[in-house]
Amino acid sequence: MRTKTNDGRFFEDYAVGQVINHAVPRTVKMGERALYHMLYPARHALYSSDQFAQTCGMPFSPLDDMIAFHVVFGKTVPDVSLNAIANLGYAEGRWHLPVWPGDTLRSRSEVIGVKQNSNGKSGVVWVRTTGLNQNDETVMDYVRWVMVRKRDPEADAPEPVVPDLAKVVAPDTLVIPRGLDFTNYDFTLAGEPHRWGDYEVGETIDHVDGVTIEEAEHMMATRLWQNTAKVHFDTSARPDGSRLIYGGHVISMARTLSFNGLANAQMIVGLNGGAHANPCVSGDTVRAWSEVLDKAETSAPGVGAIRLRLVATKGGAPFDLRGEDGKYLPNVLLDLDYWALMPV
Amino acid sequence: MRTKTNDGRFFEDYAVGQVINHAVPRTVKMGERALYHMLYPARHALYSSDQFAQTCGMPFSPLDDMIAFHVVFGKTVPDVSLNAIANLGYAEGRWHLPVWPGDTLRSRSEVIGVKQNSNGKSGVVWVRTTGLNQNDETVMDYVRWVMVRKRDPEADAPEPVVPDLAKVVAPDTLVIPRGLDFTNYDFTLAGEPHRWGDYEVGETIDHVDGVTIEEAEHMMATRLWQNTAKVHFDTSARPDGSRLIYGGHVISMARTLSFNGLANAQMIVGLNGGAHANPCVSGDTVRAWSEVLDKAETSAPGVGAIRLRLVATKGGAPFDLRGEDGKYLPNVLLDLDYWALMPV
Amino acid sequence: MRTKTNDGRFFEDYAVGQVINHAVPRTVKMGERALYHMLYPARHALYSSDQFAQTCGMPFSPLDDMIAFHVVFGKTVPDVSLNAIANLGYAEGRWHLPVWPGDTLRSRSEVIGVKQNSNGKSGVVWVRTTGLNQNDETVMDYVRWVMVRKRDPEADAPEPVVPDLAKVVAPDTLVIPRGLDFTNYDFTLAGEPHRWGDYEVGETIDHVDGVTIEEAEHMMATRLWQNTAKVHFDTSARPDGSRLIYGGHVISMARTLSFNGLANAQMIVGLNGGAHANPCVSGDTVRAWSEVLDKAETSAPGVGAIRLRLVATKGGAPFDLRGEDGKYLPNVLLDLDYWALMPV
Repeated sequence: MRTKTNDGRFFEDYAVGQVINHAVPRTVKMGERALYHMLYPARHALYSSDQFAQTCGMPFSPLDDMIAFHVVFGKTVPDVSLNAIANLGYAEGRWHLPVWPGDTLRSRSEVIGVKQNSNGKSGVVWVRTTGLNQNDETVMDYVRWVMVRKRDPEADAPEPVVPDLAKVVAPDTLVIPRGLDFTNYDFTLAGEPHRWGDYEVGETIDHVDGVTIEEAEHMMATRLWQNTAKVHFDTSARPDGSRLIYGGHVISMARTLSFNGLANAQMIVGLNGGAHANPCVSGDTVRAWSEVLDKAETSAPGVGAIRLRLVATKGGAPFDLRGEDGKYLPNVLLDLDYWALMPV
Repeated sequence: MRTKTNDGRFFEDYAVGQVINHAVPRTVKMGERALYHMLYPARHALYSSDQFAQTCGMPFSPLDDMIAFHVVFGKTVPDVSLNAIANLGYAEGRWHLPVWPGDTLRSRSEVIGVKQNSNGKSGVVWVRTTGLNQNDETVMDYVRWVMVRKRDPEADAPEPVVPDLAKVVAPDTLVIPRGLDFTNYDFTLAGEPHRWGDYEVGETIDHVDGVTIEEAEHMMATRLWQNTAKVHFDTSARPDGSRLIYGGHVISMARTLSFNGLANAQMIVGLNGGAHANPCVSGDTVRAWSEVLDKAETSAPGVGAIRLRLVATKGGAPFDLRGEDGKYLPNVLLDLDYWALMPV
Repeated sequence: MRTKTNDGRFFEDYAVGQVINHAVPRTVKMGERALYHMLYPARHALYSSDQFAQTCGMPFSPLDDMIAFHVVFGKTVPDVSLNAIANLGYAEGRWHLPVWPGDTLRSRSEVIGVKQNSNGKSGVVWVRTTGLNQNDETVMDYVRWVMVRKRDPEADAPEPVVPDLAKVVAPDTLVIPRGLDFTNYDFTLAGEPHRWGDYEVGETIDHVDGVTIEEAEHMMATRLWQNTAKVHFDTSARPDGSRLIYGGHVISMARTLSFNGLANAQMIVGLNGGAHANPCVSGDTVRAWSEVLDKAETSAPGVGAIRLRLVATKGGAPFDLRGEDGKYLPNVLLDLDYWALMPV
């Protein structure tokens, strides 16, 4: 009688071209949104008010962009990152469709790269993950790569395949939600007067506010997305007895803190890249700053795209990112590169 | 390039007659109610069961009275109390309409008083805040006053205007929800047999139960209402490293604890006054006691109004409120004065 | 003027044949489900996805089986276990109807046994509790017995009545939800390939994952079910200052952890017995293991019943249950015996 428990895949279990249909589809409704707004200081008006969303051309308010990401990501964990040593990066992420209350999300990943590490004990796996709704429509997709342990260090190394990934999602390939129209945008209700034209490439913004993280909150957030990685929940899983906080919790915390200065960066539509620079644990006080990396026009009325670096920290001065050695400073938690939509 | 971050208003930014339309309207649904019942021991049957609400003449169960207050209050924080030193009081509060799932709430405040303190460093600002729904109907309004820092201590003092506020909301001005009818009230399902006629003015009730407060809970509650005041979230915001608990968290905790002895005080309809007597921090065990201050008949069938003092404590004996010096005892957290509706 | 606060019933307040209609009916919706999936690592697909539920013959996804149990149980606490010394056992539990969003649940208990303890200070009370929906249909029922303090140790002992309870719910009396059909069951989406036929009586499964429990989480879970027992919330209620975790929190944590190895044990339909072997407090890391106790066929297409022992621990080796003295080992938290439905 063999064990029925899933102990996850190891490096040698992946091969380029494999397609993994991840388990446990999830129907999301307004309860999940209420929770998101309890767990994070979420205030972007398009994701808060049906009426505001309607003045922006939407039928009503969709679920927050990062809810889609977390649900899609969470489903991949048992198949992709249960034995991961590190979550190394993201690329080529796009939001294709808003998620509406009542949608059922599931995830599928294709292995697009494998490369054994020189130590022979682990390797890097690249997957392109697609989130699908109940109509088999893509709601989002992105590439991520993780370092995964080998089950058997003696196993042969596979032929290395390293995918050629875009450094940035080309702005003309961003998907603008159907009907989106910012020509009647209400800046007072949105919370800030700054429009797309007011931001300059190179500009930096200190988002000022900080949140000290609690164990209960990050575990509830991570569980909500059905992400089961042991290190987030079990104090005996790591030598120092701390629970490692899900990187997505830091992303959502930083993104929602960035409201203060970027209240009109309403919708995330592209994920160019991202690094979880240092671990975050309970008791850390998370702050955020942003840098405007680029701007682009879109075909939608009144809608501009803005490319932002979003940095989360647990101390240190805003705008400090790397040391003289080129490495992330120890207080940097996250360095994310994304496209958002703003009123022009 | 000036900063885009909101650092809040200071005392000299307020002038009598100003109207502030607060940002980020919020659509509330049953998810928010589920959260309220997770964060507080809420058990008043009218806010728990559609069927119970129907026997009381309502189409179904509305969102809890205090959800309306918290959402309306939360929106005012970035404009009114980000630089507040203290939340000094409430008056003339009335609930005008129940909040139904799907309603979108926003807030507007009018400055009705300003008075610089004698130290020249701060002043008191009075605002009348109105919560509106998507049909521009008033769901509640109340006056509150806060002590706010000056940006520039050298700035001139404005002409002092101190509004003349009613000590008590006159019971004949309380708004009874349309259709409310307690003639078929089910005392068994409500949880207690005591009717309006059973309470005597001067009577005191010890609500017995206590809840020890956790950081994660008060932060989630406060965030849920999109209240962004730093002191609630950031351990570096106060010299002692503690997070100050949102006064509204204490109000909701005390109100819901008061079920035990006041299970039939179903709906709050008037807020006569209130003081946050001492700070509450994580680890405090909150208890509550009430005193019947007054009673009034209403025009609705079977419905009586009861005026209650609700006191929250973090220790000490019930019914002790002030010391010999007339000041609140150090264990008193809250002294609230409100009108509720009960079956006669 | 007598006190209006409920101090609970004592042993001498119970008599065989009494029927108690418990207070505060509760309308549950998808918000409660979202919370359940935030508080526990719930992943059984039938309770996660409307589409998955539809392929199993249901109109859409019902609320999790244990939500029904917790809501029904919570209502009984003020009348049954406020003065309980210990929750001794469960028997003859059956789920009769799925709970759908919008259902309003209430509870009724009949006293079916009383027996004073030899010390004269307390006694055991048996109640059969029925959970009803808004149509007065039974959604679940079960027997539990508790040890309750006497108000007056001098009070006469009642005639002892000890009910004759079935050791196991007979599998042919289990209620299969109308329409349930596992012939089109999607094992990939469900998360594991193991079907009813793959499990052998006597087989044991270590569910591997662990969750370290936080105060905020267990209090929110317990409050969500309107369970008001002081020991769960108030650090001053127990001599050691710890808050005792609601036994149902441990049940739900263990049941959801058991997904890993029992992902296809979709629905709990029978509760044969259960013991809360040792107290659980914040900081404990809960793990779970299961043993297959029995299997039975059902009349529903593709649906088999499996009888499982579910053991929750806070340490120690999996599959260890009792010491040489026959008593539960100190690390055992829960020993539950239930029937679930699986695809054959």
